Amino acid sequence: MERYWINGVPGRLVDIDDRGLTYGDGLFETIAIRCSVARFLDLHLDRLYAGAARLKLPAPERDSLRAQLSAAAAGIDEGVMKLILTRGPGPRGYVPLQHQQPTVAWGLERCRAQRWTPIRVRWCETIAGRNPVTAGLKTLCRLEQVLARAEWQDELIAEGFMCDEQGQLVGGTACNIFIVSGGRLLTPSVTHAGISGVMRRVILQQAQGAGIESYEGPVTKMALLDADEVFVSNALIGIRPVGQLGERQWNPGPVTCKLAAKLVDLGVGECAGRC
Amino acid sequence: MERYWINGVPGRLVDIDDRGLTYGDGLFETIAIRCSVARFLDLHLDRLYAGAARLKLPAPERDSLRAQLSAAAAGIDEGVMKLILTRGPGPRGYVPLQHQQPTVAWGLERCRAQRWTPIRVRWCETIAGRNPVTAGLKTLCRLEQVLARAEWQDELIAEGFMCDEQGQLVGGTACNIFIVSGGRLLTPSVTHAGISGVMRRVILQQAQGAGIESYEGPVTKMALLDADEVFVSNALIGIRPVGQLGERQWNPGPVTCKLAAKLVDLGVGECAGRC
Repeated sequence: MERYWINGVPGRLVDIDDRGLTYGDGLFETIAIRCSVARFLDLHLDRLYAGAARLKLPAPERDSLRAQLSAAAAGIDEGVMKLILTRGPGPRGYVPLQHQQPTVAWGLERCRAQRWTPIRVRWCETIAGRNPVTAGLKTLCRLEQVLARAEWQDELIAEGFMCDEQGQLVGGTACNIFIVSGGRLLTPSVTHAGISGVMRRVILQQAQGAGIESYEGPVTKMALLDADEVFVSNALIGIRPVGQLGERQWNPGPVTCKLAAKLVDLGVGECAGRC
Repeated sequence: MERYWINGVPGRLVDIDDRGLTYGDGLFETIAIRCSVARFLDLHLDRLYAGAARLKLPAPERDSLRAQLSAAAAGIDEGVMKLILTRGPGPRGYVPLQHQQPTVAWGLERCRAQRWTPIRVRWCETIAGRNPVTAGLKTLCRLEQVLARAEWQDELIAEGFMCDEQGQLVGGTACNIFIVSGGRLLTPSVTHAGISGVMRRVILQQAQGAGIESYEGPVTKMALLDADEVFVSNALIGIRPVGQLGERQWNPGPVTCKLAAKLVDLGVGECAGRC
């Protein structure tokens, strides 16, 4: 990121004994900035604070943090804000810290929203580990995603889809996956693996509001290949239709386009495409 | 740690965009220093470089690193050296770095070797995730161990034993586990979860040399509870007999004591106890 604030102070250096580095003991959020506003900031903070509660990470006072993030976002027109919360510096070893002094950092980067175009994706061989204790959380332990993303260099392939050890679909390296079959929307549950994406949550809410039957549950590779529509989501892209996976091709379908239009109404302008 | 060197320079600050912090994208070693020598340094470097190869992390020139670590260890009599290798700083996102500039850091801390005493252990509810891509490696993604260790405060309990989703024993939060049944030594394999400990490797070598039949394979909770002897190992403690787990109690047995004596011969003085 171009600029960082660490515990409210401009800077980009952290102590090497910070638990975020030594043990991946922390969480992060990736937030889109559009028109100088941190989009869905409250939903991002909801997830961060829920995650902090699960990890017993002491979180900073929310109203104050929210105000600081909003003020920071106002400094750029369009870009990305990264928010990091770690358990802070501590001695060697896994023994719980007597006095936790969490590190709260946020970074800003100018970048343009990507265009709405169907993407090509592939399967990854790297599996996503299952663990209900951390499933759903956007923890700093992302080595699996790094290794999965390193499986291909072809720039025409935008994403890789990961399964768990049981062969169930988990998500893309940096997105959630939705499939549409017989008009019904299905996305992998995040109780045993995967990340509970903010945009995923928005999409499920919008689907409910639009009367689209939706489920969170197991999704097999076969179910995905048999689906009428496939799309991915994250906080920066909103919805992106999947156009090709190996030999299988799809056109953006009616449910994908309906949900994308809903997102446009909510300010996710990058979903405004030709359906 | 008391002191750190980062890329050869004294200091303890790292860039917040270091992949070690943002994604847990790195490895570490915990090395005992005894009589100003980094014990089993070559075995630690073997593991580090093998891990770096698996993660495609560019590692520093080995002879030079070895010389620097040896020189650093000579600065204290007895303690711990922590060695960290990360993919270095990089932009946001999982896309492989065009130019990797790894971060190599080592830290030193004076501390006395612990005494040889049978320990009390417990079961952890937190499971150890299974993933063959990272299994065996001592990666910076250790949140599962942090959460498992946070399950108890009782200072009389020295370790917690973790299983995987299938109920197979993986290891302690910070150690490998060995059981002895009918004179045979068994330790969980590290092909799907767990860490390939340096002391574990030494013990398996010593067992072979001593004519003790040994296996790496699946170990169930029941097999552990039925075992004649149970002990744990890591680089700092050598071997430590398990004296109690719940209601089950053990005395240090002949195989444990024979292996501990072998380790004493190799310089693991903290295994010199009353058997």
